[in-house]
Amino acid sequence: MKILVISGPNLNLLGTREPHIYGTTTLAEIERDLAVVGAELGVQVECRQSNHEGAIIDMIQGAKGSVDGIVINAGAYSHTSLAIRDALAAVAIPYAEVHLSNIFAREPQRRHSTLAAGARALLCGFGAPGYTLALRGLVAALRA
Amino acid sequence: MKILVISGPNLNLLGTREPHIYGTTTLAEIERDLAVVGAELGVQVECRQSNHEGAIIDMIQGAKGSVDGIVINAGAYSHTSLAIRDALAAVAIPYAEVHLSNIFAREPQRRHSTLAAGARALLCGFGAPGYTLALRGLVAALRA
Amino acid sequence: MKILVISGPNLNLLGTREPHIYGTTTLAEIERDLAVVGAELGVQVECRQSNHEGAIIDMIQGAKGSVDGIVINAGAYSHTSLAIRDALAAVAIPYAEVHLSNIFAREPQRRHSTLAAGARALLCGFGAPGYTLALRGLVAALRA
Amino acid sequence: MKILVISGPNLNLLGTREPHIYGTTTLAEIERDLAVVGAELGVQVECRQSNHEGAIIDMIQGAKGSVDGIVINAGAYSHTSLAIRDALAAVAIPYAEVHLSNIFAREPQRRHSTLAAGARALLCGFGAPGYTLALRGLVAALRA
Amino acid sequence: MKILVISGPNLNLLGTREPHIYGTTTLAEIERDLAVVGAELGVQVECRQSNHEGAIIDMIQGAKGSVDGIVINAGAYSHTSLAIRDALAAVAIPYAEVHLSNIFAREPQRRHSTLAAGARALLCGFGAPGYTLALRGLVAALRA
Amino acid sequence: MKILVISGPNLNLLGTREPHIYGTTTLAEIERDLAVVGAELGVQVECRQSNHEGAIIDMIQGAKGSVDGIVINAGAYSHTSLAIRDALAAVAIPYAEVHLSNIFAREPQRRHSTLAAGARALLCGFGAPGYTLALRGLVAALRA
Amino acid sequence: MKILVISGPNLNLLGTREPHIYGTTTLAEIERDLAVVGAELGVQVECRQSNHEGAIIDMIQGAKGSVDGIVINAGAYSHTSLAIRDALAAVAIPYAEVHLSNIFAREPQRRHSTLAAGARALLCGFGAPGYTLALRGLVAALRA
Amino acid sequence: MKILVISGPNLNLLGTREPHIYGTTTLAEIERDLAVVGAELGVQVECRQSNHEGAIIDMIQGAKGSVDGIVINAGAYSHTSLAIRDALAAVAIPYAEVHLSNIFAREPQRRHSTLAAGARALLCGFGAPGYTLALRGLVAALRA
Amino acid sequence: MKILVISGPNLNLLGTREPHIYGTTTLAEIERDLAVVGAELGVQVECRQSNHEGAIIDMIQGAKGSVDGIVINAGAYSHTSLAIRDALAAVAIPYAEVHLSNIFAREPQRRHSTLAAGARALLCGFGAPGYTLALRGLVAALRA
Amino acid sequence: MKILVISGPNLNLLGTREPHIYGTTTLAEIERDLAVVGAELGVQVECRQSNHEGAIIDMIQGAKGSVDGIVINAGAYSHTSLAIRDALAAVAIPYAEVHLSNIFAREPQRRHSTLAAGARALLCGFGAPGYTLALRGLVAALRA
Amino acid sequence: MKILVISGPNLNLLGTREPHIYGTTTLAEIERDLAVVGAELGVQVECRQSNHEGAIIDMIQGAKGSVDGIVINAGAYSHTSLAIRDALAAVAIPYAEVHLSNIFAREPQRRHSTLAAGARALLCGFGAPGYTLALRGLVAALRA
Amino acid sequence: MKILVISGPNLNLLGTREPHIYGTTTLAEIERDLAVVGAELGVQVECRQSNHEGAIIDMIQGAKGSVDGIVINAGAYSHTSLAIRDALAAVAIPYAEVHLSNIFAREPQRRHSTLAAGARALLCGFGAPGYTLALRGLVAALRA
Repeated sequence: MKILVISGPNLNLLGTREPHIYGTTTLAEIERDLAVVGAELGVQVECRQSNHEGAIIDMIQGAKGSVDGIVINAGAYSHTSLAIRDALAAVAIPYAEVHLSNIFAREPQRRHSTLAAGARALLCGFGAPGYTLALRGLVAALRA
Repeated sequence: MKILVISGPNLNLLGTREPHIYGTTTLAEIERDLAVVGAELGVQVECRQSNHEGAIIDMIQGAKGSVDGIVINAGAYSHTSLAIRDALAAVAIPYAEVHLSNIFAREPQRRHSTLAAGARALLCGFGAPGYTLALRGLVAALRA
Repeated sequence: MKILVISGPNLNLLGTREPHIYGTTTLAEIERDLAVVGAELGVQVECRQSNHEGAIIDMIQGAKGSVDGIVINAGAYSHTSLAIRDALAAVAIPYAEVHLSNIFAREPQRRHSTLAAGARALLCGFGAPGYTLALRGLVAALRA
Repeated sequence: MKILVISGPNLNLLGTREPHIYGTTTLAEIERDLAVVGAELGVQVECRQSNHEGAIIDMIQGAKGSVDGIVINAGAYSHTSLAIRDALAAVAIPYAEVHLSNIFAREPQRRHSTLAAGARALLCGFGAPGYTLALRGLVAALRA
Repeated sequence: MKILVISGPNLNLLGTREPHIYGTTTLAEIERDLAVVGAELGVQVECRQSNHEGAIIDMIQGAKGSVDGIVINAGAYSHTSLAIRDALAAVAIPYAEVHLSNIFAREPQRRHSTLAAGARALLCGFGAPGYTLALRGLVAALRA
Repeated sequence: MKILVISGPNLNLLGTREPHIYGTTTLAEIERDLAVVGAELGVQVECRQSNHEGAIIDMIQGAKGSVDGIVINAGAYSHTSLAIRDALAAVAIPYAEVHLSNIFAREPQRRHSTLAAGARALLCGFGAPGYTLALRGLVAALRA
Repeated sequence: MKILVISGPNLNLLGTREPHIYGTTTLAEIERDLAVVGAELGVQVECRQSNHEGAIIDMIQGAKGSVDGIVINAGAYSHTSLAIRDALAAVAIPYAEVHLSNIFAREPQRRHSTLAAGARALLCGFGAPGYTLALRGLVAALRA
Repeated sequence: MKILVISGPNLNLLGTREPHIYGTTTLAEIERDLAVVGAELGVQVECRQSNHEGAIIDMIQGAKGSVDGIVINAGAYSHTSLAIRDALAAVAIPYAEVHLSNIFAREPQRRHSTLAAGARALLCGFGAPGYTLALRGLVAALRA
Repeated sequence: MKILVISGPNLNLLGTREPHIYGTTTLAEIERDLAVVGAELGVQVECRQSNHEGAIIDMIQGAKGSVDGIVINAGAYSHTSLAIRDALAAVAIPYAEVHLSNIFAREPQRRHSTLAAGARALLCGFGAPGYTLALRGLVAALRA
Repeated sequence: MKILVISGPNLNLLGTREPHIYGTTTLAEIERDLAVVGAELGVQVECRQSNHEGAIIDMIQGAKGSVDGIVINAGAYSHTSLAIRDALAAVAIPYAEVHLSNIFAREPQRRHSTLAAGARALLCGFGAPGYTLALRGLVAALRA
Repeated sequence: MKILVISGPNLNLLGTREPHIYGTTTLAEIERDLAVVGAELGVQVECRQSNHEGAIIDMIQGAKGSVDGIVINAGAYSHTSLAIRDALAAVAIPYAEVHLSNIFAREPQRRHSTLAAGARALLCGFGAPGYTLALRGLVAALRA
Repeated sequence: MKILVISGPNLNLLGTREPHIYGTTTLAEIERDLAVVGAELGVQVECRQSNHEGAIIDMIQGAKGSVDGIVINAGAYSHTSLAIRDALAAVAIPYAEVHLSNIFAREPQRRHSTLAAGARALLCGFGAPGYTLALRGLVAALRA
């Protein structure tokens, strides 16, 4: 089983980006944690990041045929991109949506995710550990 | 560390209640899983359920002073009860919100949670395992 | 065949409660009429009333397995309670919704019923006789 | 006592029109049932149907002076016609509104009836028997 | 100069229709007043009434080439008919809109006129004399 | 009988102010026409203008006891001032509202008049002659 | 295969009606083009026009059993008529919706079509040739 | 004269509950102040609190016949409960609504009170002394 | 301690202005009551009234440095004036807002106060005694 | 004459992407059909596809000076991209908008196209043949 | 060339008014800066301030014929006054709108300016220097 | 001090792009003016342009550590991109927003900027000189 973990715009800055909101863990540290939990669960984990909406669509399209599930934190594109949602629907790979902060405690435009309606599951507000929780939850769902 | 797990209206029917939406696991089975994970994490887990909004408020008020975190699935009251949110704010105990189904893939009135803005974190759509994921995530956040 | 008739908050005051809106027939008189029509139709009729949302949920849950249809006038909870609707969906018993007054000729907040979308049928504005009309209609639908 | 029963656009197709929504009973069969119940209640029942909004207004205007109550299923005009509502107000004849399907469980534009605020009573979702229930209810109200 | 005066649905009932709103003057009396004022102004006045939206459209289309201005009280169709507005635009004859009652002091759905944006002028609330005021005002505008 | 004619902000500039919208007639010319028609009707006409909302309120308050009707074109205050409406209600003098242009063919914020709901009547779009039409209509209504 | 082409209110005026919006081609010319393309495609084309909503409903009902597809330009009724949509659903004949102008570049009330959600396809803005394009497209879809 | 003072959910926690919003005075202290002012005014004051919506309805129903006025701070139920409003209307006892904080300076969902439209009067933002101000004001109104 | 009491437009007409809404007490009588209660509380009370928004702003600006609290009933300007709110914020003097009638039981546009969000407290519906209640409450708050 | 045909995000997956919505024809097949029809019409057709919004803007800018018309199916960007619309306006090349599915029969967010208001024409719901219909219609419009 | 600089309500308090929002520069200092920059640019600058909406309208009307451009910071009236906008349109003098704070980062009611749609240009958030920037920009535009 | 000037989609076409809206100055000319004013102010100015949202995010991220302020005209992305706003917040560099046209005088979707709430300042409508005005204003703010 292979899981693709996609991080969207500005998540490459984690650790220094508004740390009172997003915490001080870097994306590299999160990816190390994901590798550890992936190994524990017996699944292969691949991590990708891009600031470009089109590149994220390309990543998702490229996952077809080789990936069993996607953990995605599309950052700000979560709130505006219908094209990423379409890509996820087009490849028909189950996905779990992650946000570091509790998006429902933030400004109005962040309280709606365009991706959520098509997701298997969503979690937010757990900070960096949210990624591995989502990985655990998605793998459990795929194995059920 | 002690965690209170509160389940709201109609969750006592889990397993038989609209199983295509809520799954076939019963609340008793979920509580057994929570006990196992609580033991693993070294925290005490207490589970309560009620169909009465007032009784849930009483439970939350009663937790003050003895409980360190709350995992709450307030069922339909999640979408309508400001009084439960006030109780959670009044006792100032961090809480994580859980939903079995992906509420953002359901009818409009279920896509907004009155409790979410005050929560530490929220997860939905992971089914019965969502309870133990929330427990793990909340304990991690409290220990951080 | 057994029909449960549920009346919600403030309906115990029928006859004296704003009689220009709700009429002068008491709930006891309505229940007598329901017994008469139930006998005519060959169905057992049980009548319950409560001012407590949680108690109404308990009633509905308790009906599972022994009741074939529900006639419900949830009073003000019709307009605010998603938890009662969930209970009705959870037990999967067909129900008809009744209101004494024409709710569409009243204040805006009374013109929407949270229960209606899940109901088999709805009637309003017929006053006290609306209960027996709903009983007739629901029994006919169940027998069809 | 004379009751006029008006059916609006496309109701002449009942029985073959989207039978999963509207049932398989024809309008002629409904009118026979209305005649039977009218006889039982001792009231004269006259049935009219038209696909033309203007013709329905003419029918209502023509009822003034000879009709004591109107049972009306204005079909799609229920949701769009203020002119039919004005006609009903102009002749000042009490009326009950009927819909075969539960309009509150359908698309948004069908969940609001322009006629409802002026009606004595409304019922929906009882299928073809809804017409005779409305007749019973309206006659009872007029005799009260 | 020829002016066509069109009255829409239910205006044939003026005098008996909700007289507390629409007054006790009949349409025939209004038409006599219009004839008198038309003679005074030296214009020909023709009066038509229909309850049918399509017939009103036909009237307007028929006016092309022979009518210089239209005074129209489209009754309830004022609030719902885009087709009548299109007919008025298609024949490109200037028109003044009249309402007997002050539509801005009534229910919300009567406070917007679909015809108003295309009209030369609008008046309401002057009762039956509003027709002749509109005639005077429209003729003055056409002569200016 | 005495009629007060009030003109609001920027109406002192009539004739030069956006003449494609408001025409080329000056306020002085309109006041002369009002005097002529007032004499014809046998009523005393007094004309006032101010750019100050408070001054218009003072004018209206001052009219109590000596004025039988008010013709008011409150200009832009028509769309924003609840205080002028309150003054009109406080003195309980019937009033007709006038606008030179057809406000329903203009920008959205001009399509709603705060004063209209309390007015006896409203007219707009007749240009400068609208003032005398309103005077005629209001006097007729007061004499009826 | 037989295709019915229905044109709604004011389309009989095509060629002279607001030609800057609707062009200078007459309905008769469009019908001749449709006949030519119908012959090319080997389908029978029948053209009807009416200004009356009820008459259009009658046309649609009359098509049942003899017509395989409908091309409809319901004019202004496209934006207001639920009854025409119901008729189309009742006869269950696939239809394509046509508009001469690009309705999405016009006033807000023209940007929503009540008929569109039930249509097989929609096109607008191609002017008179839109009718034959719709015919081609609908025939292709029916043959696929 | 007897006045019932009802406090709703979470008000039993006053003094420790979010003291920056609700102050440090306890409900017991408020009730002592009410007793003192009641004695001064010569009225009997009875104080009740509950976290249960249904129990508050029961309290209000029980007041019928023995209570002349109600001072109510329904806490979060002020913003969501139509059933409490119905109970107050059903017993037809005048009531004044109290809030400790200025609800209009808080989150949007707290800026609307379901109870306010039926109240004799409302006050908010005066903190604990608001209860005795409301008592004074209500008694004055009842004696006027 | 000095308290400024400001009354806005049309409040000079109290006693005769719509007495079924605003009561029969005059502003002079209210001011006498305020003087009495001010003396009882040991505070200086100054009363001002104006129909001019700008003049009210001037009054508020003039209060800076000499006034400790403001009781304000801005009448209709409460619902429309952001400039008065800015003046109150600019001088940073705590204020309590008063309305004679229960604004939440009136027309929609009166149910929102632009001033409320910046106020220390608000009361409405107590009639003329509301002014002295507000004075008592504000002085208590300032002394706390 | 040269026509550029632009396909947006996820349209490279046509044929396998949600075929119950988008059909089983591939983009390569559509492009072959376009070449055939282009040859028939005597116009040069160039086809481009990208998942990147910026790349589509670059394509449009690059068309200036060499392309006479654009057929564009911007996929999900149709509903969210103002920048693509601006590019189309900036180069001032007439364009027709195409959608494979009937976007008005889908989820709310797909029922509005940001591009439509600037388009010459729009068609949707004809499936793969919609591309060649749009080509025919656009060429006809350009030649008219 | 002469430029009129108008400052609206509460701007006379600049320097002491909420300095965390509006800064510590006084209006007199701003006016000195404007004189300096005016001299540099070779234009005459006149500065006026008022708290009265009507007085601002009078100022604008008085500018006709002698003023070439207006720099206006209408303070709170920017968000509520249609009459000031009408005055600016009536005199047809180009104007630039200035705000000291970034109004788009403040409360919702400040994020819309009634004056903006008619302005040549708008700037906000630059603090006191915004006035001279606007002067420079407006003069450049007038000279272009 | 170094200032980065970012121009978004379609701004590379300035001079030829809809010149009645955006003027005839090219982006190269604007950049020359910026260099001149930058030299006058003693700051280094770097100019970048891209049609790609992701590339603009990359530019902003790359500015961290070397740039003191950003002048940004994000073109159409101003109205739709939350990701660009997040990038600006992530690098925490103060920025001023520029638009060539007065966006508040254009179509509704252009009247809201997603970037504005986080900006230090905004200006629009000054045409090409707006860039240098923004540069002056931003440098002044950074030096203050």
